[in-house]
Amino acid sequence: MQKYPIHLLKLIDVMRKLPGVGTKSAERFAFELINWPDERLKEMASVIQETKSAIKHCPLCGCLTGTDACPFCTDTARRSPSLCVVATARDVFSIEATHEFRGLYHVLGALLSPLEGISPDRLTLDLLKKRIETHKIEEVVIALDSTLEGDATSLFLKQELAPFCENVSRLAFGLPMGSSLDYVDGGTLARAFTARNKF
Amino acid sequence: MQKYPIHLLKLIDVMRKLPGVGTKSAERFAFELINWPDERLKEMASVIQETKSAIKHCPLCGCLTGTDACPFCTDTARRSPSLCVVATARDVFSIEATHEFRGLYHVLGALLSPLEGISPDRLTLDLLKKRIETHKIEEVVIALDSTLEGDATSLFLKQELAPFCENVSRLAFGLPMGSSLDYVDGGTLARAFTARNKF
Repeated sequence: MQKYPIHLLKLIDVMRKLPGVGTKSAERFAFELINWPDERLKEMASVIQETKSAIKHCPLCGCLTGTDACPFCTDTARRSPSLCVVATARDVFSIEATHEFRGLYHVLGALLSPLEGISPDRLTLDLLKKRIETHKIEEVVIALDSTLEGDATSLFLKQELAPFCENVSRLAFGLPMGSSLDYVDGGTLARAFTARNKF
Repeated sequence: MQKYPIHLLKLIDVMRKLPGVGTKSAERFAFELINWPDERLKEMASVIQETKSAIKHCPLCGCLTGTDACPFCTDTARRSPSLCVVATARDVFSIEATHEFRGLYHVLGALLSPLEGISPDRLTLDLLKKRIETHKIEEVVIALDSTLEGDATSLFLKQELAPFCENVSRLAFGLPMGSSLDYVDGGTLARAFTARNKF
């Protein structure tokens, strides 16, 4: 048994609730925090408590926004007839950072998972279909995880969207950039092999 | 440029101030936090803000405590005439977790570092000497980092404590448990070789 003071234990416990943070990291955070100046602790506390209420979901695409509509839906320069479907708002920012896409986004909200009880009614599918019609979308890019849930959801979307859009694509599978064949797992290698391109 | 809402950016920025947390982890923390229930956010905020003031340094050994004296100094069962010198309060808990030591602790507060302007007057040396006399300490165990600063401070302590205690030891150097020689660095291997024991 550690003999940490009770308040310190509580702080460690709270920090351990952050994603991917184990006891060692939580202890490191806690020991650092008790050495911070008071204003900095106060700032962190208020930002943690207030951010959630200051952020909304865009009623159109489901992305995060500080105002009423998100910068992607309101940007008149984004006029390409393409729409990219992602699972979470976070994915929008990841794809945006690649500068490869100038169309609209749509956040599904989740991936299908019978084990976790996530069925099709949890996805923003009706809104997606309506947007495809409204915006005369010519290509839907499915940008979901390459996991079991991502595969199932992609297949489901392909079937559901067929009557609304002829051109439905999905992100390519293959070797990650800078990877060495030694370190790539068998599943990735097999998919990269099958999807080989003329060089 | 990411198009994160400004409040989310602020939260990411705050989380990035935690030790060892880069942009990727900070983003992960922030996206998780905005999905937490309000009570949980409120609890985290208040714990972060209040822990520091609830924790004191023990006036005797310098360790952290929630009350006036720390559990190590007040524990009457710790009667061994040994005293273990560490750099920070955190080190006390690390050594305590090994269950190898039942004596008193002393927190130096820092390691000597001319580069960072940490000179001997920043160490709690006078208090340490007084405690060695008061508690009739027979062995001082120096448990400092095996770094340049740790080595310099250990050497300094050895000289300073010579008139107060004959038996001053330092933690052993050698192979970490479960290590393979292939992966151990040259410095560690050299020290382990020099300090080899009869088997």
